[in-house]
Amino acid sequence: MIYTAQVKVMPHKELLDPQGKAVLGGLRNLGLNNISDVRIGKNITLQVEAESADAAKTVAEEAAKKLLANPVMEMFEVVIH
Amino acid sequence: MIYTAQVKVMPHKELLDPQGKAVLGGLRNLGLNNISDVRIGKNITLQVEAESADAAKTVAEEAAKKLLANPVMEMFEVVIH
Repeated sequence: MIYTAQVKVMPHKELLDPQGKAVLGGLRNLGLNNISDVRIGKNITLQVEAESADAAKTVAEEAAKKLLANPVMEMFEVVIH
Repeated sequence: MIYTAQVKVMPHKELLDPQGKAVLGGLRNLGLNNISDVRIGKNITLQVEAESADAAKTVAEEAAKKLLANPVMEMFEVVIH
């Protein structure tokens, strides 16, 4: 069966997110002053062929660990749909 | 009150996603052959000060329309936590 895996990759909370800071500045310039913090990560969807949702999650987590996320700077979360 | 808004920005389904194709190639090279389609978008979290969750969603949608997503190539979805 084909499962859709969603991998969310976000910068670690302790780290500065320069891209997010730049976007926050842009939002301020547009007059959106009630937004106070912006963090930008990746949202990756994978189509995984597996026998069960658990097996699909294992494959997606392996993909995230090996290629999609940089563990030094990023954390990831896998959700199977 | 401060709400956390999550904005998922993904390339339109009809469009080719060259970054996703490249990552799919990388996953194949790593031996992950049961993944068949990869699409890569952005996952953005915003801290929004608003009176209600609905008001926070409106602000986040405005931010997405004005700056975070390119409507020609991307679709977005806002979730308030």
